[in-house]
Amino acid sequence: MGRGASVTHLYGSFEPLGADGGARIGVRYGDQVLDLAAALEPDLGAEVMGPNLDRLLAARPHLWQCVFDAVAALEPSAEHLHPLDEVRLLMPFTVADYVDFYSSEHHARNLGRILRPGQPELPPNWKHLPVGYHGRAGTVVVSGTDVRRPSGQRRTPDGDVVHGPTTRLDIEAEVGFVVGVPSTLGEAVPLDGFRDHVFGLCLVNDWSARDVQAWEYQPLGPFLGKSFATSVGAWVTPLAALDAAWVAPPPREPALLPYLDDATAPPYGLDLRLEVRLNGHVVATPPFAQMYWTAAQQLAHLTVNGASLRSGDLYASGTVSGSEPGQRGSLIELTWNGTEPITLPDGTVRGFLDDGDEVVITATAPGPGGTRLDLGEVRGRIVASREG
Amino acid sequence: MGRGASVTHLYGSFEPLGADGGARIGVRYGDQVLDLAAALEPDLGAEVMGPNLDRLLAARPHLWQCVFDAVAALEPSAEHLHPLDEVRLLMPFTVADYVDFYSSEHHARNLGRILRPGQPELPPNWKHLPVGYHGRAGTVVVSGTDVRRPSGQRRTPDGDVVHGPTTRLDIEAEVGFVVGVPSTLGEAVPLDGFRDHVFGLCLVNDWSARDVQAWEYQPLGPFLGKSFATSVGAWVTPLAALDAAWVAPPPREPALLPYLDDATAPPYGLDLRLEVRLNGHVVATPPFAQMYWTAAQQLAHLTVNGASLRSGDLYASGTVSGSEPGQRGSLIELTWNGTEPITLPDGTVRGFLDDGDEVVITATAPGPGGTRLDLGEVRGRIVASREG
Repeated sequence: MGRGASVTHLYGSFEPLGADGGARIGVRYGDQVLDLAAALEPDLGAEVMGPNLDRLLAARPHLWQCVFDAVAALEPSAEHLHPLDEVRLLMPFTVADYVDFYSSEHHARNLGRILRPGQPELPPNWKHLPVGYHGRAGTVVVSGTDVRRPSGQRRTPDGDVVHGPTTRLDIEAEVGFVVGVPSTLGEAVPLDGFRDHVFGLCLVNDWSARDVQAWEYQPLGPFLGKSFATSVGAWVTPLAALDAAWVAPPPREPALLPYLDDATAPPYGLDLRLEVRLNGHVVATPPFAQMYWTAAQQLAHLTVNGASLRSGDLYASGTVSGSEPGQRGSLIELTWNGTEPITLPDGTVRGFLDDGDEVVITATAPGPGGTRLDLGEVRGRIVASREG
Repeated sequence: MGRGASVTHLYGSFEPLGADGGARIGVRYGDQVLDLAAALEPDLGAEVMGPNLDRLLAARPHLWQCVFDAVAALEPSAEHLHPLDEVRLLMPFTVADYVDFYSSEHHARNLGRILRPGQPELPPNWKHLPVGYHGRAGTVVVSGTDVRRPSGQRRTPDGDVVHGPTTRLDIEAEVGFVVGVPSTLGEAVPLDGFRDHVFGLCLVNDWSARDVQAWEYQPLGPFLGKSFATSVGAWVTPLAALDAAWVAPPPREPALLPYLDDATAPPYGLDLRLEVRLNGHVVATPPFAQMYWTAAQQLAHLTVNGASLRSGDLYASGTVSGSEPGQRGSLIELTWNGTEPITLPDGTVRGFLDDGDEVVITATAPGPGGTRLDLGEVRGRIVASREG
């Protein structure tokens, strides 16, 4: 089975380069991709296979588990394995609605200190509900897609309002959760409905033009400062692979309203460790376990007003930042709004991103027997604005 | 051709009640619906027909015009006409991304006075760019769908944070624009690209839970206060029917950045007259011609950062409010945040919506030879919360 690699339970969509047959579901085996439909046939049929994960997502959790177990038991033949460098990775699923939360207390406090000095670090609602907003589903792109530097309006320090390429292009290292099973309009999904609806997770880089965002965001929130591109990993990790990763979330104060209160629930925190690389150099190691709000709480909040879920809904955590300076998942925090630039090994400095910069976010999770699972990567390179 | 009614150039999707054959495209003829595919066959083929307008939207403007001309020239036979009360109207198209703007100066000033007394009525950015945000595409519902009173968090006047059914359920009377032709990621659509991408318009009611919205919206904007439901009309009016409706927008001060400057462009304002009925009683007559930002400017802004358009993208104007008190398109304005309730003909009063209330928004536009075109309606009735 190809260089002895074992399955990593990363599901995605790929097409072999230069071959016929088109897009199909793939599962990672080390530096190879298994053609899942070919390997499983005829055990698991067309109902969950397809060019990407859409049909599998829309299936029921019982089928998710059947596929997971079948993958775990596979001993694939070499004919179904493709070297990673001989395939093109595609969007793993079709995004329905995209929501982005703001669930790291350290991130929210850092942004409060940077953007609203002298005011309370957290908005009054922050510890009562997971603050979030809808993003643009149509501009979610798969890892490896170049990101063009966006243009937009900004206000200069002199108060002039100008248009042009952003001068403060940033990243946000996040974890996204992928909804499989839809819900009914008018019915809330409780905390313990999380596993009935959410299939798995993927890595997310929520690119942000800070100057555009700062000028536009009052009173209706981020819009063009975010909507130019959001990158997601090519690989989705099913929750079934994460049994060893669940941890208790941080203590919450004040107490939560009942629909968000997870004190007696199973632990919905996740001990993921992220790494952010800028041009190959690790600039941050954000710890997901420190997130104040869990994915289960985010889902309960998202639906508490009766809003329905669709298969393919993606909701992301918001920037993952830990308590230490080296654990911050955005450049605005790492460089303190550009005032404390990062020096890269080549001697160049960065406040925000330059054209040509490449950002790669990876993560691992606790696996069986003390191992760590690889959760893939989300990669993107900045290309110059068309406006020069 | 059925009671002498003539075509009204309203396109939608319907299925005959109690009959086989399923959903199909319909065109309004007075109080009847024409089965368009049946009537046009075999002149215009399967490439633009289907269960709804999705294929027609994704076609090119040349085909839109061909269909428009064919409809105008039709003399339909009775067998292709269905009385409105013998069909079910369906979602006219599949919503890709949903964006909501905030483009009435009167509305924005009223909300500033109500919500932020003593501060400037308009945010600093308001006259420089069309403020907007992304809404939840998955909860856009067709006219006639009941709207369940949503629950959510709110902060009481005493400062307590509580959960329960909204006590300030409101409407927003809006006009939505429907994108047909997609655009390329990384490329802005200029003002004069409006007609290359936008197929037509429909009426929108952006239901709003004001207490939920007030508590949640800082700093990332409206979320659950809006995402429980957005109603759209069952009928889409193609731009081709609106030749007589274009008017110059209001004068703008300060001057606009070039990508928004429409001083030398054709007039992109629209002389639509809306009517808002609460339980059959007209409570407002908002004039769309007074909108500060046009649909062409909204599209140029939406894409100026390179965000791409998809077929089925819907972007709405924001609440349409005119200069006069009776022209305000939301209850928060009409009742001045509940302090000046409306008295209905049955003697009951409303600050915000009661369970059982029905809201119907209609509109007309100038048509050929001094006539006025009917733009359909968006209708919704409030049903009680499940939480009682």
